[in-house]
Amino acid sequence: MKVASRHFRSIWPDMRCKFVEIIDQTRLPFAFEIARIENIEQMAYAIKTMQVRGAPLIGAAAAYGVALAMLQDDSDEYLNHAGQELMSTRPTAVNLQWAVKRMQMHLLALQPKQRNLAAWKEAAKIAEEDVAQNKAIGQHGLDLIKKIYKNKKLNILTHCNAGWLAAVDFGTALAPIYAAHDAGLSVHVWVGETRPRNQGSSLTAWELAQHGVPYTIIADNAGGHLMQQGLVDMVIVGADRVTAKGDVCNKIGTYLKALAAFDNNIPFYAAVPSPTIDWTITDFDEIEIEERDSAEMTHTQGLGADGSVQSVRVVPEGSTIANPAFDVTPARLVTGIITELGVFVPMELLKFEKA
Amino acid sequence: MKVASRHFRSIWPDMRCKFVEIIDQTRLPFAFEIARIENIEQMAYAIKTMQVRGAPLIGAAAAYGVALAMLQDDSDEYLNHAGQELMSTRPTAVNLQWAVKRMQMHLLALQPKQRNLAAWKEAAKIAEEDVAQNKAIGQHGLDLIKKIYKNKKLNILTHCNAGWLAAVDFGTALAPIYAAHDAGLSVHVWVGETRPRNQGSSLTAWELAQHGVPYTIIADNAGGHLMQQGLVDMVIVGADRVTAKGDVCNKIGTYLKALAAFDNNIPFYAAVPSPTIDWTITDFDEIEIEERDSAEMTHTQGLGADGSVQSVRVVPEGSTIANPAFDVTPARLVTGIITELGVFVPMELLKFEKA
Repeated sequence: MKVASRHFRSIWPDMRCKFVEIIDQTRLPFAFEIARIENIEQMAYAIKTMQVRGAPLIGAAAAYGVALAMLQDDSDEYLNHAGQELMSTRPTAVNLQWAVKRMQMHLLALQPKQRNLAAWKEAAKIAEEDVAQNKAIGQHGLDLIKKIYKNKKLNILTHCNAGWLAAVDFGTALAPIYAAHDAGLSVHVWVGETRPRNQGSSLTAWELAQHGVPYTIIADNAGGHLMQQGLVDMVIVGADRVTAKGDVCNKIGTYLKALAAFDNNIPFYAAVPSPTIDWTITDFDEIEIEERDSAEMTHTQGLGADGSVQSVRVVPEGSTIANPAFDVTPARLVTGIITELGVFVPMELLKFEKA
Repeated sequence: MKVASRHFRSIWPDMRCKFVEIIDQTRLPFAFEIARIENIEQMAYAIKTMQVRGAPLIGAAAAYGVALAMLQDDSDEYLNHAGQELMSTRPTAVNLQWAVKRMQMHLLALQPKQRNLAAWKEAAKIAEEDVAQNKAIGQHGLDLIKKIYKNKKLNILTHCNAGWLAAVDFGTALAPIYAAHDAGLSVHVWVGETRPRNQGSSLTAWELAQHGVPYTIIADNAGGHLMQQGLVDMVIVGADRVTAKGDVCNKIGTYLKALAAFDNNIPFYAAVPSPTIDWTITDFDEIEIEERDSAEMTHTQGLGADGSVQSVRVVPEGSTIANPAFDVTPARLVTGIITELGVFVPMELLKFEKA
């Protein structure tokens, strides 16, 4: 997608396969900076600190992390070590584990000296597949939007950032919105700020502004009220993991929006590429919910009066903090899962698995 | 309640009835400052900018505002003007209108020269009644807590600030919690930060810390997840207005917590003194929802690295903002309304009105 009219992806390899470049998402929306990642340690750090984040993107980032590792050392031991280091960065999104395991299976079957080149090729393939999947998600989502579009402004609420910054390109939840906007439909997006890291107000708002899609930032608290007032036609979110039953594990607060959508008869969709579906679990209690650093709650980053990015403390000294990063929306509240293969209602997902 | 072991109320008159003093709540939790309010304009400004806030407190503050007006000019015209100026500050909480009208009715029946003294007496009476009501709310709420208390830590979730800072003393939603803590019960409070003004993380956390009640600050988004995990035994919130049917108009985001409580079979209570009940309306669409300044969303205030209070911008320049301050939780999601008269289930409120 575009940044100031120039096309960008969220991650790309050096042409000679010596390093990887990423958009440093911890600097947005105040600065657009590209960071060079030169080894596995730097990639693990980038994932952990959320310089790259979003389920599909951390899958691709982990794949490139394995490629960087093979540049350093193409042994079985180092391949194993690299996988462990990457998988320990963040526990909830299934894409990370999926990408690492796919890379490992692919490379273990090869001779060590073949691994470096093969790793860069396979990582690029994972990235390209993600782009193709997200583009397809956009088209399937566009079909859904067209069904409820009535030639007047359609209001779509989203949570967190599941745009192109969360994927390699196009995004998941935002892919249908970009597709609708590009097709000339009048869409407007309610962007929840998404406490505590503000991915909505910092990333989704920035993305939509760069592409020219109208949006309004709201407190996460305001979503239910807007639905009660008839100001939301549809909810689309991304997901970090979807169970075989159709339960949606996504950014903390998604469950509250789903409850409100259900209470107000508003369709609620999760948009995910198929690698985000975890066929191995049906009970969402099996999903490990990441507890993140309390500093995300105690401090807020923003632009100071002097134009520099500053961090201010927003809670009384000595306060205890809990900071779970995800919650699970039970399948019963989910209207459908938009994938690159089409739109499934949760129970169909289960049938699909068994078929 | 106590601030560093010394007893305080949130508002009090000068002994000679020449001015009023308040705790400036826009400075908390970083600075504890007392502001002197000397005339009606200053009181209207204090209410509008939320130096004083919380439904019961702005009722008492408005009453003292009328008293300050009578000090300036005891004519019918000025009494009318003062009432209009105060009532225009904030539209949603019914206590403000209730207190102004009570003051006006009381004073209009008197000769102008009697009004100054009578106004200070009536304002003090409103304040004392609020204290007595909140103390009674605390006792009725304590009875509810005792019913579900099982000699192990009881987790109560609250939203926004409905503590003693929101009232003249004791508070509404926090009154039962203070009563339980003081009675030796082990209670722990989940404090939602309450975006966008952070009354939870700045005021409720500060209050509870001063009184020694254990608490944990969470993002508003986390409430539903904690309920799913069995970590919430009870929800108690305050309210800015309760309809005769038992619909609860309270800080934006309350509705989302009520939906989650209902979905997880957790009792959800609103604690209000009877002046917060608006018997004149049964349909909550009649309640005007205040839209507040977008600066509450675009900027966050906190303590900078140098120890000074600073404001940082947290959204991209040029973003559109919506900032509704309240939402309405339908009576069907409300387990009970804790008042100074006892605990009513919503439908009983309607019967009570007709009796």
